[in-house]
Amino acid sequence: MTYAGVELGGTKCVAILAPGPGEVLARETVPTTSPEETLGAIANILSRWQFQALGIASFGPVDLDPQSATYGHITSTPKPGWAGTDVLGPLRHAAGVPAAFDTDVNGAALAEMRWGSGRGFQDFAYVTVGTGVGVGLIANGLPMRGFAHCEMGHIRVARLQGDKFAGSCPFHGDCVEGLAAGPSLIARVGTEHVAGLAGDDPLWKSVAWALAQLCHTIVCAAAPRAIAVGGGVLDNQPHLLRRIETMLVESLNGYMTLPAGAPYLRAPALGRDAGPLGAIALAMTVRP
Amino acid sequence: MTYAGVELGGTKCVAILAPGPGEVLARETVPTTSPEETLGAIANILSRWQFQALGIASFGPVDLDPQSATYGHITSTPKPGWAGTDVLGPLRHAAGVPAAFDTDVNGAALAEMRWGSGRGFQDFAYVTVGTGVGVGLIANGLPMRGFAHCEMGHIRVARLQGDKFAGSCPFHGDCVEGLAAGPSLIARVGTEHVAGLAGDDPLWKSVAWALAQLCHTIVCAAAPRAIAVGGGVLDNQPHLLRRIETMLVESLNGYMTLPAGAPYLRAPALGRDAGPLGAIALAMTVRP
Repeated sequence: MTYAGVELGGTKCVAILAPGPGEVLARETVPTTSPEETLGAIANILSRWQFQALGIASFGPVDLDPQSATYGHITSTPKPGWAGTDVLGPLRHAAGVPAAFDTDVNGAALAEMRWGSGRGFQDFAYVTVGTGVGVGLIANGLPMRGFAHCEMGHIRVARLQGDKFAGSCPFHGDCVEGLAAGPSLIARVGTEHVAGLAGDDPLWKSVAWALAQLCHTIVCAAAPRAIAVGGGVLDNQPHLLRRIETMLVESLNGYMTLPAGAPYLRAPALGRDAGPLGAIALAMTVRP
Repeated sequence: MTYAGVELGGTKCVAILAPGPGEVLARETVPTTSPEETLGAIANILSRWQFQALGIASFGPVDLDPQSATYGHITSTPKPGWAGTDVLGPLRHAAGVPAAFDTDVNGAALAEMRWGSGRGFQDFAYVTVGTGVGVGLIANGLPMRGFAHCEMGHIRVARLQGDKFAGSCPFHGDCVEGLAAGPSLIARVGTEHVAGLAGDDPLWKSVAWALAQLCHTIVCAAAPRAIAVGGGVLDNQPHLLRRIETMLVESLNGYMTLPAGAPYLRAPALGRDAGPLGAIALAMTVRP
Protein backbone atom coordinates (compact mmCIF):
# COMPACT_ATOMS: atom_id res chain seq x y z
CA MET A 1 0.00 0.00 0.00
CA THR A 2 1.17 3.52 -0.80
CA TYR A 3 -0.46 6.57 0.74
CA ALA A 4 -0.59 10.26 -0.08
CA GLY A 5 -0.74 12.74 2.77
CA VAL A 6 -1.51 16.44 2.54
CA GLU A 7 -0.86 18.78 5.44
CA LEU A 8 -2.76 22.00 4.83
CA GLY A 9 -1.09 24.73 6.86
CA GLY A 10 -1.72 28.42 7.29
CA THR A 11 1.41 29.46 5.41
CA LYS A 12 2.38 26.36 3.42
CA CYS A 13 1.07 22.95 2.44
CA VAL A 14 3.14 19.77 2.34
CA ALA A 15 2.21 16.75 0.24
CA ILE A 16 4.07 13.47 0.71
CA LEU A 17 3.84 10.06 -0.90
CA ALA A 18 4.82 7.19 1.39
CA PRO A 19 4.15 3.56 2.25
CA GLY A 20 4.72 4.49 5.91
CA PRO A 21 6.73 6.77 8.18
CA GLY A 22 10.17 5.45 7.36
CA GLU A 23 10.18 5.86 3.60
CA VAL A 24 9.06 9.03 1.85
CA LEU A 25 8.91 8.48 -1.92
CA ALA A 26 8.08 12.07 -2.85
CA ARG A 27 7.58 15.38 -1.05
CA GLU A 28 6.31 18.66 -2.45
CA THR A 29 5.58 22.00 -0.81
CA VAL A 30 3.09 24.60 -2.00
CA PRO A 31 2.63 28.07 -0.48
CA THR A 32 -0.82 28.71 0.97
CA THR A 33 -2.27 31.55 -1.09
CA SER A 34 -5.86 31.65 -2.36
CA PRO A 35 -7.95 28.49 -1.98
CA GLU A 36 -8.25 28.00 -5.77
CA GLU A 37 -4.54 28.39 -6.45
CA THR A 38 -3.43 26.33 -3.45
CA LEU A 39 -5.87 23.45 -3.82
CA GLY A 40 -5.32 23.48 -7.60
CA ALA A 41 -1.57 23.06 -7.15
CA ILE A 42 -2.06 20.21 -4.65
CA ALA A 43 -4.63 18.51 -6.90
CA ASN A 44 -2.11 18.72 -9.71
CA ILE A 45 0.55 16.98 -7.60
CA LEU A 46 -1.89 14.28 -6.45
CA SER A 47 -3.02 13.55 -10.01
CA ARG A 48 0.60 12.70 -10.96
CA TRP A 49 1.11 10.25 -8.05
CA GLN A 50 0.00 6.62 -7.70
CA PHE A 51 -1.51 5.69 -4.29
CA GLN A 52 -4.38 3.77 -2.74
CA ALA A 53 -5.63 6.18 -0.05
CA LEU A 54 -5.40 9.90 0.74
CA GLY A 55 -5.16 11.63 4.11
CA ILE A 56 -5.73 15.34 4.61
CA ALA A 57 -4.72 17.09 7.84
CA SER A 58 -6.00 20.64 7.72
CA PHE A 59 -5.75 23.82 9.75
CA GLY A 60 -9.13 24.57 11.27
CA PRO A 61 -11.74 24.90 12.39
CA VAL A 62 -13.13 22.38 9.94
CA ASP A 63 -16.42 20.52 9.58
CA LEU A 64 -15.77 16.86 10.44
CA ASP A 65 -19.40 15.77 10.58
CA PRO A 66 -20.04 13.28 7.74
CA GLN A 67 -23.77 14.02 8.11
CA SER A 68 -23.22 17.71 7.42
CA ALA A 69 -23.72 19.41 4.04
CA THR A 70 -20.38 21.15 4.56
CA TYR A 71 -18.37 18.07 5.61
CA GLY A 72 -14.73 18.56 4.67
CA HIS A 73 -15.00 22.35 4.53
CA ILE A 74 -13.04 24.90 6.50
CA THR A 75 -15.59 26.78 8.58
CA SER A 76 -14.94 30.10 10.32
CA THR A 77 -11.24 30.81 9.87
CA PRO A 78 -10.06 34.42 10.01
CA LYS A 79 -7.69 33.53 7.13
CA PRO A 80 -8.80 35.74 4.16
CA GLY A 81 -10.67 33.84 1.46
CA TRP A 82 -10.65 30.47 3.21
CA ALA A 83 -13.83 30.55 5.31
CA GLY A 84 -16.30 28.08 3.84
CA THR A 85 -13.75 26.48 1.47
CA ASP A 86 -14.39 22.88 0.46
CA VAL A 87 -11.00 21.23 0.99
CA LEU A 88 -11.94 17.56 0.88
CA GLY A 89 -14.08 17.66 -2.29
CA PRO A 90 -11.53 18.85 -4.88
CA LEU A 91 -8.63 16.87 -3.39
CA ARG A 92 -10.62 13.63 -3.19
CA HIS A 93 -11.78 14.23 -6.75
CA ALA A 94 -8.19 14.73 -7.97
CA ALA A 95 -6.98 11.67 -6.05
CA GLY A 96 -9.73 9.31 -7.19
CA VAL A 97 -9.23 7.11 -4.09
CA PRO A 98 -10.86 6.99 -0.63
CA ALA A 99 -9.82 9.90 1.58
CA ALA A 100 -9.69 10.63 5.31
CA PHE A 101 -10.05 14.20 6.53
CA ASP A 102 -9.26 15.63 9.95
CA THR A 103 -7.58 18.52 11.71
CA ASP A 104 -3.80 18.94 11.66
CA VAL A 105 -3.83 18.42 15.43
CA ASN A 106 -5.75 15.14 15.28
CA GLY A 107 -3.45 13.98 12.46
CA ALA A 108 -0.35 14.83 14.50
CA ALA A 109 -1.86 13.09 17.55
CA LEU A 110 -2.41 9.92 15.51
CA ALA A 111 1.10 10.06 14.03
CA GLU A 112 2.67 10.59 17.47
CA MET A 113 0.67 7.62 18.78
CA ARG A 114 1.67 5.36 15.91
CA TRP A 115 5.30 6.31 15.50
CA GLY A 116 6.37 8.82 18.15
CA SER A 117 5.89 9.57 21.83
CA GLY A 118 2.72 7.48 22.21
CA ARG A 119 3.86 4.30 20.49
CA GLY A 120 1.87 1.22 21.45
CA PHE A 121 -1.07 3.11 22.96
CA GLN A 122 -4.71 3.27 21.89
CA ASP A 123 -5.60 6.12 24.25
CA PHE A 124 -3.38 9.15 23.90
CA ALA A 125 -3.48 12.94 23.90
CA TYR A 126 -1.39 15.51 22.05
CA VAL A 127 -1.24 19.15 23.15
CA THR A 128 0.46 21.86 21.11
CA VAL A 129 1.00 25.32 22.58
CA GLY A 130 1.90 27.94 20.02
CA THR A 131 -0.20 30.75 18.55
CA GLY A 132 -3.13 28.76 19.96
CA VAL A 133 -3.56 25.69 22.15
CA GLY A 134 -4.54 22.65 20.09
CA VAL A 135 -5.54 19.32 21.61
CA GLY A 136 -5.90 15.99 19.84
CA LEU A 137 -7.60 13.33 21.97
CA ILE A 138 -7.55 9.70 20.87
CA ALA A 139 -9.82 7.21 22.64
CA ASN A 140 -10.10 3.54 21.72
CA GLY A 141 -7.73 4.21 18.80
CA LEU A 142 -9.88 6.91 17.19
CA PRO A 143 -9.76 10.71 17.35
CA MET A 144 -12.77 11.86 19.33
CA ARG A 145 -15.26 13.81 17.33
CA GLY A 146 -18.95 14.33 17.72
CA PHE A 147 -20.56 17.33 16.07
CA ALA A 148 -17.15 19.06 16.13
CA HIS A 149 -13.49 18.31 16.76
CA CYS A 150 -11.71 18.60 20.07
CA GLU A 151 -11.37 22.23 21.22
CA MET A 152 -9.99 21.68 24.70
CA GLY A 153 -7.71 24.69 24.38
CA HIS A 154 -10.90 26.68 24.97
CA ILE A 155 -11.97 25.22 28.30
CA ARG A 156 -12.23 27.60 31.25
CA VAL A 157 -10.08 26.37 34.14
CA ALA A 158 -9.54 27.16 37.81
CA ARG A 159 -7.15 30.11 38.03
CA LEU A 160 -3.82 30.21 39.78
CA GLN A 161 -4.39 32.03 43.04
CA GLY A 162 -3.34 35.66 42.76
CA ASP A 163 -3.07 35.72 38.96
CA LYS A 164 -5.46 38.47 37.82
CA PHE A 165 -4.56 38.55 34.09
CA ALA A 166 -7.82 38.77 32.15
CA GLY A 167 -6.67 36.42 29.38
CA SER A 168 -6.29 37.09 25.68
CA CYS A 169 -8.89 34.82 24.03
CA PRO A 170 -11.39 36.97 22.11
CA PHE A 171 -14.13 34.42 22.87
CA HIS A 172 -13.46 33.32 26.43
CA GLY A 173 -10.85 35.64 27.96
CA ASP A 174 -9.06 33.36 30.40
CA CYS A 175 -9.59 29.94 28.83
CA VAL A 176 -6.40 27.83 28.56
CA GLU A 177 -5.53 29.37 25.19
CA GLY A 178 -6.14 32.83 26.62
CA LEU A 179 -3.73 32.08 29.48
CA ALA A 180 -0.96 30.02 27.87
CA ALA A 181 -0.67 30.54 24.08
CA GLY A 182 1.78 32.92 22.43
CA PRO A 183 -0.62 35.89 22.15
CA SER A 184 -1.30 35.72 25.91
CA LEU A 185 2.43 36.11 26.58
CA ILE A 186 2.51 39.16 24.32
CA ALA A 187 -0.57 40.58 26.06
CA ARG A 188 1.09 40.08 29.46
CA VAL A 189 4.56 41.50 28.82
CA GLY A 190 4.52 43.18 25.38
CA THR A 191 5.85 41.91 22.05
CA GLU A 192 9.35 43.22 22.61
CA HIS A 193 9.84 41.32 25.89
CA VAL A 194 8.53 37.84 25.02
CA ALA A 195 11.69 36.49 23.39
CA GLY A 196 13.82 37.59 26.36
CA LEU A 197 11.69 36.05 29.12
CA ALA A 198 13.91 34.11 31.53
CA GLY A 199 13.02 30.58 32.56
CA ASP A 200 12.50 31.71 36.16
CA ASP A 201 10.13 34.55 35.26
CA PRO A 202 7.02 34.27 37.49
CA LEU A 203 4.90 34.36 34.32
CA TRP A 204 5.78 30.71 33.63
CA LYS A 205 4.13 29.61 36.84
CA SER A 206 0.82 30.90 35.50
CA VAL A 207 1.39 29.29 32.09
CA ALA A 208 2.38 25.95 33.65
CA TRP A 209 -0.65 26.08 35.98
CA ALA A 210 -3.11 26.64 33.10
CA LEU A 211 -1.57 23.75 31.13
CA ALA A 212 -1.57 21.54 34.25
CA GLN A 213 -5.30 22.24 34.66
CA LEU A 214 -5.80 21.31 31.00
CA CYS A 215 -3.92 18.04 31.62
CA HIS A 216 -5.93 17.42 34.84
CA THR A 217 -9.09 17.75 32.75
CA ILE A 218 -7.76 15.49 29.98
CA VAL A 219 -6.88 12.83 32.59
CA CYS A 220 -10.34 13.02 34.18
CA ALA A 221 -12.05 12.96 30.77
CA ALA A 222 -10.20 10.20 28.96
CA ALA A 223 -7.30 8.94 31.09
CA PRO A 224 -4.92 8.66 28.12
CA ARG A 225 -1.85 6.43 28.67
CA ALA A 226 0.37 9.48 28.14
CA ILE A 227 0.11 13.09 26.96
CA ALA A 228 2.56 14.68 24.52
CA VAL A 229 2.94 18.40 25.15
CA GLY A 230 4.82 20.47 22.59
CA GLY A 231 4.64 23.50 20.31
CA GLY A 232 6.58 26.75 20.07
CA VAL A 233 6.03 27.89 23.65
CA LEU A 234 7.42 24.63 25.09
CA ASP A 235 10.24 24.48 22.53
CA ASN A 236 11.43 27.86 23.82
CA GLN A 237 10.93 27.00 27.52
CA PRO A 238 11.75 23.30 27.90
CA HIS A 239 11.62 23.50 31.73
CA LEU A 240 7.83 23.85 31.45
CA LEU A 241 7.18 20.16 30.74
CA ARG A 242 8.35 18.88 34.14
CA ARG A 243 6.79 21.84 36.00
CA ILE A 244 3.43 21.03 34.40
CA GLU A 245 3.71 17.37 35.40
CA THR A 246 4.54 18.29 39.01
CA MET A 247 1.53 20.62 39.16
CA LEU A 248 -0.68 17.97 37.50
CA VAL A 249 0.18 15.39 40.16
CA GLU A 250 -0.47 17.96 42.91
CA SER A 251 -3.77 18.92 41.33
CA LEU A 252 -5.04 15.33 41.02
CA ASN A 253 -4.08 14.98 44.71
CA GLY A 254 -4.05 11.19 44.76
CA TYR A 255 -7.58 10.79 43.45
CA MET A 256 -6.20 9.32 40.24
CA THR A 257 -2.73 7.81 39.96
CA LEU A 258 -0.82 8.33 36.73
CA PRO A 259 0.65 5.20 35.11
CA ALA A 260 4.02 4.31 36.63
CA GLY A 261 7.24 4.05 34.64
CA ALA A 262 8.02 6.60 31.95
CA PRO A 263 7.12 10.28 32.46
CA TYR A 264 3.42 10.82 31.81
CA LEU A 265 3.95 14.12 29.99
CA ARG A 266 6.35 13.79 27.06
CA ALA A 267 7.86 15.97 24.39
CA PRO A 268 6.52 15.02 20.94
CA ALA A 269 9.02 12.88 19.04
CA LEU A 270 8.25 13.60 15.37
CA GLY A 271 9.12 17.31 15.30
CA ARG A 272 8.22 19.12 12.07
CA ASP A 273 7.26 15.83 10.40
CA ALA A 274 4.22 15.39 12.69
CA GLY A 275 2.11 17.37 10.21
CA PRO A 276 2.68 15.42 6.96
CA LEU A 277 3.05 12.11 8.84
CA GLY A 278 -0.29 12.91 10.48
CA ALA A 279 -1.82 13.04 7.02
CA ILE A 280 -0.26 9.64 6.22
CA ALA A 281 -1.59 8.23 9.52
CA LEU A 282 -5.06 9.49 8.54
CA ALA A 283 -4.74 7.87 5.09
CA MET A 284 -3.90 4.58 6.81
CA THR A 285 -7.27 4.67 8.64
CA VAL A 286 -9.07 4.39 5.29
CA ARG A 287 -9.93 0.99 3.90
CA PRO A 288 -9.75 1.24 0.12
CA MET B 1 -29.72 -13.71 21.79
CA THR B 2 -30.54 -13.41 25.47
CA TYR B 3 -28.42 -11.34 27.85
CA ALA B 4 -27.93 -11.17 31.58
CA GLY B 5 -27.25 -7.80 33.16
CA VAL B 6 -26.07 -7.15 36.71
CA GLU B 7 -26.17 -3.68 38.22
CA LEU B 8 -23.97 -3.64 41.29
CA GLY B 9 -25.11 -0.77 43.49
CA GLY B 10 -24.03 0.54 46.85
CA THR B 11 -27.20 -0.64 48.63
CA LYS B 12 -28.68 -3.25 46.30
CA CYS B 13 -27.86 -5.22 43.17
CA VAL B 14 -30.30 -5.90 40.35
CA ALA B 15 -29.91 -8.83 37.95
CA ILE B 16 -32.10 -9.02 34.86
CA LEU B 17 -32.42 -11.49 32.01
CA ALA B 18 -33.51 -9.92 28.72
CA PRO B 19 -33.20 -10.13 24.95
CA GLY B 20 -33.32 -6.32 24.88
CA PRO B 21 -34.82 -3.30 26.63
CA GLY B 22 -38.48 -4.03 25.87
CA GLU B 23 -38.77 -7.51 27.29
CA VAL B 24 -37.45 -8.49 30.72
CA LEU B 25 -37.71 -12.27 31.21
CA ALA B 26 -36.56 -12.30 34.84
CA ARG B 27 -35.51 -9.78 37.46
CA GLU B 28 -34.00 -10.40 40.88
CA THR B 29 -32.75 -8.05 43.56
CA VAL B 30 -30.08 -8.80 46.15
CA PRO B 31 -29.10 -6.49 49.04
CA THR B 32 -25.46 -5.34 48.95
CA THR B 33 -23.89 -6.75 52.11
CA SER B 34 -20.44 -8.36 52.24
CA PRO B 35 -18.71 -9.07 48.92
CA GLU B 36 -18.81 -12.86 49.47
CA GLU B 37 -22.48 -12.96 50.35
CA THR B 38 -23.56 -10.49 47.65
CA LEU B 39 -21.52 -11.92 44.79
CA GLY B 40 -22.41 -15.45 45.90
CA ALA B 41 -26.12 -14.67 45.70
CA ILE B 42 -25.73 -13.10 42.25
CA ALA B 43 -23.60 -16.01 41.01
CA ASN B 44 -26.33 -18.35 42.21
CA ILE B 45 -28.96 -16.46 40.19
CA LEU B 46 -26.78 -16.38 37.08
CA SER B 47 -26.07 -20.12 37.27
CA ARG B 48 -29.82 -20.81 37.01
CA TRP B 49 -30.36 -18.62 33.91
CA GLN B 50 -29.65 -19.36 30.22
CA PHE B 51 -27.96 -16.52 28.30
CA GLN B 52 -25.19 -15.88 25.78
CA ALA B 53 -23.44 -12.81 27.24
CA LEU B 54 -23.16 -11.05 30.59
CA GLY B 55 -22.88 -7.34 31.35
CA ILE B 56 -21.83 -5.97 34.74
CA ALA B 57 -22.33 -2.28 35.60
CA SER B 58 -20.66 -1.62 38.92
CA PHE B 59 -20.35 1.19 41.44
CA GLY B 60 -16.79 2.44 41.45
CA PRO B 61 -14.08 3.30 41.24
CA VAL B 62 -13.22 0.12 39.35
CA ASP B 63 -10.20 -1.09 37.39
CA LEU B 64 -11.20 -1.16 33.69
CA ASP B 65 -7.74 -1.74 32.28
CA PRO B 66 -7.64 -5.20 30.64
CA GLN B 67 -3.83 -5.09 30.91
CA SER B 68 -4.00 -4.70 34.68
CA ALA B 69 -3.62 -7.54 37.19
CA THR B 70 -6.68 -6.20 39.02
CA TYR B 71 -8.92 -5.77 35.94
CA GLY B 72 -12.56 -6.11 37.01
CA HIS B 73 -11.86 -5.28 40.65
CA ILE B 74 -13.33 -2.49 42.72
CA THR B 75 -10.38 -0.32 43.72
CA SER B 76 -10.47 2.28 46.49
CA THR B 77 -14.10 2.48 47.61
CA PRO B 78 -14.82 3.71 51.15
CA LYS B 79 -17.55 1.00 51.28
CA PRO B 80 -16.46 -1.39 54.11
CA GLY B 81 -15.05 -4.69 52.85
CA TRP B 82 -15.34 -3.90 49.14
CA ALA B 83 -11.99 -2.23 48.39
CA GLY B 84 -9.97 -4.62 46.20
CA THR B 85 -12.90 -6.98 45.56
CA ASP B 86 -12.77 -8.97 42.31
CA VAL B 87 -16.26 -8.50 40.89
CA LEU B 88 -15.77 -9.68 37.32
CA GLY B 89 -13.94 -12.93 38.10
CA PRO B 90 -16.55 -14.80 40.18
CA LEU B 91 -19.52 -13.55 38.13
CA ARG B 92 -17.91 -14.46 34.79
CA HIS B 93 -17.02 -17.85 36.24
CA ALA B 94 -20.61 -18.45 37.36
CA ALA B 95 -22.01 -17.28 34.03
CA GLY B 96 -19.65 -19.30 31.83
CA VAL B 97 -20.13 -16.86 28.93
CA PRO B 98 -18.22 -13.77 27.71
CA ALA B 99 -18.70 -10.77 29.98
CA ALA B 100 -18.41 -6.99 29.68
CA PHE B 101 -17.53 -4.93 32.73
CA ASP B 102 -17.82 -1.18 33.21
CA THR B 103 -18.99 1.46 35.66
CA ASP B 104 -22.68 1.97 36.41
CA VAL B 105 -22.36 5.45 34.89
CA ASN B 106 -20.87 4.20 31.61
CA GLY B 107 -23.54 1.49 31.48
CA ALA B 108 -26.32 4.03 31.99
CA ALA B 109 -24.75 6.29 29.37
CA LEU B 110 -24.76 3.44 26.85
CA ALA B 111 -28.36 2.49 27.69
CA GLU B 112 -29.54 6.12 27.40
CA MET B 113 -27.79 6.35 24.02
CA ARG B 114 -29.31 3.13 22.72
CA TRP B 115 -32.84 3.41 24.08
CA GLY B 116 -33.34 6.73 25.84
CA SER B 117 -32.43 10.40 25.51
CA GLY B 118 -29.54 9.82 23.11
CA ARG B 119 -31.19 7.47 20.67
CA GLY B 120 -29.48 7.32 17.26
CA PHE B 121 -26.23 8.93 18.40
CA GLN B 122 -22.69 7.50 18.52
CA ASP B 123 -21.28 10.41 20.54
CA PHE B 124 -23.15 11.15 23.73
CA ALA B 125 -22.60 12.14 27.35
CA TYR B 126 -24.54 11.32 30.51
CA VAL B 127 -24.15 13.33 33.69
CA THR B 128 -25.70 12.31 37.00
CA VAL B 129 -25.68 14.70 39.94
CA GLY B 130 -26.49 13.05 43.25
CA THR B 131 -24.22 12.13 46.14
CA GLY B 132 -21.43 12.60 43.59
CA VAL B 133 -21.16 13.84 40.02
CA GLY B 134 -20.76 10.95 37.57
CA VAL B 135 -20.02 11.40 33.88
CA GLY B 136 -20.20 8.79 31.14
CA LEU B 137 -18.65 9.91 27.86
CA ILE B 138 -19.22 7.90 24.70
CA ALA B 139 -17.12 8.66 21.63
CA ASN B 140 -17.36 6.76 18.36
CA GLY B 141 -19.90 4.44 20.01
CA LEU B 142 -17.58 3.36 22.85
CA PRO B 143 -17.23 4.55 26.45
CA MET B 144 -13.95 6.38 26.72
CA ARG B 145 -11.42 4.68 28.93
CA GLY B 146 -7.68 4.76 28.97
CA PHE B 147 -5.87 3.78 32.16
CA ALA B 148 -9.06 4.70 34.11
CA HIS B 149 -12.71 5.54 33.55
CA CYS B 150 -14.13 9.01 33.08
CA GLU B 151 -13.94 11.11 36.27
CA MET B 152 -15.05 14.45 34.91
CA GLY B 153 -16.98 15.22 38.09
CA HIS B 154 -13.53 15.91 39.53
CA ILE B 155 -12.34 18.60 37.11
CA ARG B 156 -11.54 22.02 38.54
CA VAL B 157 -13.54 24.70 36.76
CA ALA B 158 -13.66 28.49 36.57
CA ARG B 159 -15.64 29.77 39.55
CA LEU B 160 -18.78 31.87 39.44
CA GLN B 161 -17.71 35.42 40.21
CA GLY B 162 -18.34 36.23 43.85
CA ASP B 163 -18.93 32.64 45.00
CA LYS B 164 -16.35 31.98 47.70
CA PHE B 165 -17.58 28.56 48.90
CA ALA B 166 -14.50 26.38 49.35
CA GLY B 167 -16.17 23.24 47.99
CA SER B 168 -16.79 19.93 49.69
CA CYS B 169 -14.64 17.44 47.76
CA PRO B 170 -12.08 15.88 50.13
CA PHE B 171 -9.61 15.59 47.23
CA HIS B 172 -10.10 18.78 45.24
CA GLY B 173 -12.25 21.17 47.27
CA ASP B 174 -14.07 23.10 44.58
CA CYS B 175 -14.09 20.63 41.69
CA VAL B 176 -17.52 20.20 40.03
CA GLU B 177 -18.51 17.50 42.51
CA GLY B 178 -17.36 19.70 45.39
CA LEU B 179 -19.58 22.53 44.09
CA ALA B 180 -22.70 20.77 42.81
CA ALA B 181 -23.27 17.32 44.38
CA GLY B 182 -25.56 16.68 47.35
CA PRO B 183 -22.86 16.90 50.04
CA SER B 184 -21.87 20.37 48.77
CA LEU B 185 -25.45 21.56 49.29
CA ILE B 186 -25.38 20.22 52.85
CA ALA B 187 -22.02 21.90 53.44
CA ARG B 188 -23.40 25.21 52.16
CA VAL B 189 -26.71 25.40 54.02
CA GLY B 190 -26.78 22.56 56.58
CA THR B 191 -28.54 19.21 56.41
CA GLU B 192 -31.80 20.52 57.83
CA HIS B 193 -32.22 23.20 55.11
CA VAL B 194 -31.40 21.28 51.92
CA ALA B 195 -34.83 19.74 51.37
CA GLY B 196 -36.56 23.10 51.78
CA LEU B 197 -34.37 25.10 49.36
CA ALA B 198 -36.60 27.15 47.04
CA GLY B 199 -36.03 27.07 43.28
CA ASP B 200 -35.06 30.76 43.32
CA ASP B 201 -32.46 30.37 46.08
CA PRO B 202 -29.22 32.07 44.92
CA LEU B 203 -27.41 28.80 45.69
CA TRP B 204 -28.78 27.27 42.48
CA LYS B 205 -26.98 29.86 40.38
CA SER B 206 -23.66 28.51 41.70
CA VAL B 207 -24.73 24.90 41.16
CA ALA B 208 -25.96 25.63 37.61
CA TRP B 209 -22.75 27.52 36.83
CA ALA B 210 -20.51 24.62 37.94
CA LEU B 211 -22.55 22.16 35.86
CA ALA B 212 -22.54 24.55 32.88
CA GLN B 213 -18.73 24.67 33.11
CA LEU B 214 -18.67 20.87 33.19
CA CYS B 215 -20.86 20.82 30.06
CA HIS B 216 -18.65 23.49 28.38
CA THR B 217 -15.67 21.21 28.99
CA ILE B 218 -17.51 18.12 27.71
CA VAL B 219 -18.47 20.01 24.53
CA CYS B 220 -14.88 21.18 23.96
CA ALA B 221 -13.50 17.69 24.69
CA ALA B 222 -15.81 15.44 22.69
CA ALA B 223 -18.65 17.50 21.17
CA PRO B 224 -21.30 14.86 21.95
CA ARG B 225 -24.54 15.17 19.95
CA ALA B 226 -26.44 15.73 23.21
CA ILE B 227 -25.86 15.54 26.96
CA ALA B 228 -28.32 13.91 29.38
CA VAL B 229 -28.19 15.56 32.82
CA GLY B 230 -30.04 13.89 35.66
CA GLY B 231 -29.70 12.49 39.16
CA GLY B 232 -31.27 13.34 42.51
CA VAL B 233 -30.25 17.01 42.57
CA LEU B 234 -31.89 17.68 39.18
CA ASP B 235 -34.91 15.53 39.99
CA ASN B 236 -35.57 17.80 42.97
CA GLN B 237 -34.86 21.04 41.10
CA PRO B 238 -36.06 20.53 37.52
CA HIS B 239 -35.57 24.24 36.64
CA LEU B 240 -31.81 23.61 36.71
CA LEU B 241 -31.67 21.87 33.32
CA ARG B 242 -32.68 24.93 31.26
CA ARG B 243 -30.61 27.29 33.42
CA ILE B 244 -27.52 25.14 32.81
CA GLU B 245 -28.15 25.17 29.04
CA THR B 246 -28.53 28.96 29.00
CA MET B 247 -25.25 29.36 30.92
CA LEU B 248 -23.55 26.81 28.65
CA VAL B 249 -24.46 28.77 25.51
CA GLU B 250 -23.27 32.02 27.14
CA SER B 251 -20.02 30.36 28.22
CA LEU B 252 -19.24 28.95 24.75
CA ASN B 253 -19.89 32.50 23.48
CA GLY B 254 -20.37 31.55 19.84
CA TYR B 255 -17.03 29.77 19.49
CA MET B 256 -18.87 26.48 19.12
CA THR B 257 -22.50 26.22 18.07
CA LEU B 258 -24.62 23.50 19.64
CA PRO B 259 -26.59 21.29 17.22
CA ALA B 260 -29.89 22.92 16.23
CA GLY B 261 -33.29 21.35 16.83
CA ALA B 262 -34.02 19.54 20.09
CA PRO B 263 -32.62 20.89 23.39
CA TYR B 264 -28.97 19.97 23.75
CA LEU B 265 -29.26 19.15 27.46
CA ARG B 266 -31.95 16.57 28.16
CA ALA B 267 -33.42 14.76 31.11
CA PRO B 268 -32.51 11.05 31.05
CA ALA B 269 -35.40 8.96 29.71
CA LEU B 270 -34.88 5.56 31.34
CA GLY B 271 -35.31 6.56 35.00
CA ARG B 272 -34.51 3.85 37.52
CA ASP B 273 -34.11 1.27 34.75
CA ALA B 274 -30.96 2.99 33.45
CA GLY B 275 -28.85 0.86 35.82
CA PRO B 276 -29.92 -2.68 34.90
CA LEU B 277 -30.50 -1.71 31.25
CA GLY B 278 -26.97 -0.33 31.26
CA ALA B 279 -25.75 -3.78 32.21
CA ILE B 280 -27.76 -5.26 29.31
CA ALA B 281 -26.31 -2.63 26.94
CA LEU B 282 -22.83 -3.66 28.11
CA ALA B 283 -23.65 -7.34 27.52
CA MET B 284 -24.69 -6.45 23.98
CA THR B 285 -21.20 -5.08 23.27
CA VAL B 286 -19.74 -8.58 23.76
CA ARG B 287 -19.39 -10.90 20.81
CA PRO B 288 -19.88 -14.45 22.09
